[in-house]
Amino acid sequence: TEDSDDSENIVVCELSGKRRVSVRSWQGKIWVDIRDFYEKDGKVLPGKKGITLNMDQWNILRDHIEEIDEAVSEKS
Amino acid sequence: TEDSDDSENIVVCELSGKRRVSVRSWQGKIWVDIRDFYEKDGKVLPGKKGITLNMDQWNILRDHIEEIDEAVSEKS
Repeated sequence: TEDSDDSENIVVCELSGKRRVSVRSWQGKIWVDIRDFYEKDGKVLPGKKGITLNMDQWNILRDHIEEIDEAVSEKS
Repeated sequence: TEDSDDSENIVVCELSGKRRVSVRSWQGKIWVDIRDFYEKDGKVLPGKKGITLNMDQWNILRDHIEEIDEAVSEKS
């Protein structure tokens, strides 16, 4: 089930209070999730705001880090 | 307005069909947006699925690229 996979979630970093980058296996594939979490009844749960990248998408994002930084510089 | 800012959107890359990474100025700040878009009446519009990172959040994500890749390796 998704729950059993979810217990093996690796939280890589927190971008802010409850915004996390995590890596998990699900449906036989690996996903990078950038998402807001919230607390309810003492549990930390994934919220609706976020995006889950498959490996192809993650690799494209990673390969464009410098171009993203260049675009940021253009805007600064 | 947000619209006038949006015209200066820099689309850095497409992660898949309509999933884009873009950089924009809005409310005097710079944002990195990872988001699904959709087409309606010939216009390409931002969808609900996605996440908008401020510069602090983007910098933390960028500084954890290797750790994300390591977590992916652990899952592989």
